[in-house]
Amino acid sequence: MADDLWLTSRLEFIIEADRLKQVIRHTRLMDGSRLENSAEHSWHLALMALTLAEYAPTPCDLNHVIRVLLVHDLVEIDAGDTFAFDIQAHLTKDAREQAAAERLFGLLPEHEGTALRALWDEFEASTTNEARFALAIDRLEPLLCNIRNGGGTWREYQVGHAAVLQRMDPIRHGAPGLWPYVLHMIAEAREQGWIA
Amino acid sequence: MADDLWLTSRLEFIIEADRLKQVIRHTRLMDGSRLENSAEHSWHLALMALTLAEYAPTPCDLNHVIRVLLVHDLVEIDAGDTFAFDIQAHLTKDAREQAAAERLFGLLPEHEGTALRALWDEFEASTTNEARFALAIDRLEPLLCNIRNGGGTWREYQVGHAAVLQRMDPIRHGAPGLWPYVLHMIAEAREQGWIA
Repeated sequence: MADDLWLTSRLEFIIEADRLKQVIRHTRLMDGSRLENSAEHSWHLALMALTLAEYAPTPCDLNHVIRVLLVHDLVEIDAGDTFAFDIQAHLTKDAREQAAAERLFGLLPEHEGTALRALWDEFEASTTNEARFALAIDRLEPLLCNIRNGGGTWREYQVGHAAVLQRMDPIRHGAPGLWPYVLHMIAEAREQGWIA
Repeated sequence: MADDLWLTSRLEFIIEADRLKQVIRHTRLMDGSRLENSAEHSWHLALMALTLAEYAPTPCDLNHVIRVLLVHDLVEIDAGDTFAFDIQAHLTKDAREQAAAERLFGLLPEHEGTALRALWDEFEASTTNEARFALAIDRLEPLLCNIRNGGGTWREYQVGHAAVLQRMDPIRHGAPGLWPYVLHMIAEAREQGWIA
């Protein structure tokens, strides 16, 4: 009977999670055709982690990275996606996301909600190698989108070179082997006039 | 230098994978607002596996299930999504998907492409506990969508009770603990007149 209640809670969480497919990011798909949503973004990051494992700091438990990435944006269901370069929205981001985490992970049986929430807390704290690598991948994906779709959010919001470098800085720590390549891509984007 | 070539291959694969976000399934989101794409679907399945691990056959390596789910639909980038109840399209599905696997996993450095392709082959063969659980989750998600959005593909394509049961049968083997609940949901959908 406890098991049935647990199943009900789990399905409620799964049904609620469906809404992440409707959280729209500011980044466009690589072909520029439409804005990306946070669910498909999360999938892409998990797949990228699998492919780029070699560039993670050592030691790094890749399975754990993937779990972190699967839940890292769930709070956006309530809190919305906070645009990277929106300073105003960042002032309230923490409070909005904490409340969202409380509600969403709270839908699950307690021990499971606690375990999944710990993955999100870890991502936010960004102190473990796993969380740092996850954050690096989370920064790399929109960079690749912008590079592929002709400047994307950089052009649209006239983001300057210093702001881009600061935004990408977690890659320097979280995937150091990728950093030279990232600098190279940013330099190319600047030459194209995509970065102010 | 070899490493640079590998990075180029990996990024090529990652960029190509972006196109899975544009492969449109026949299933609608749970609120019925639009059709689901295969990338966000893959994310949802991986999250579901995390939440429903208790219902997997024993033994089952959950990390492996998640990896299988992350790549299980990639071939649709070339082969398209083959609708569950389209008998004609299923005749050519295998050949289309094999060619897609060859090309897509072939973008990666050989040892990595082989490893990811093995995950897809495992899903297709469906003989390990991990692949069976992955398939069960892959069947459960559209069932939940149909239940939530008022009958979904069952109504739209007038799918009969026997066909639904047959389609859901992998859950009976791959997540036996969920089977009674699945039968219950199908019975309710039938009462609603959603299943012919």
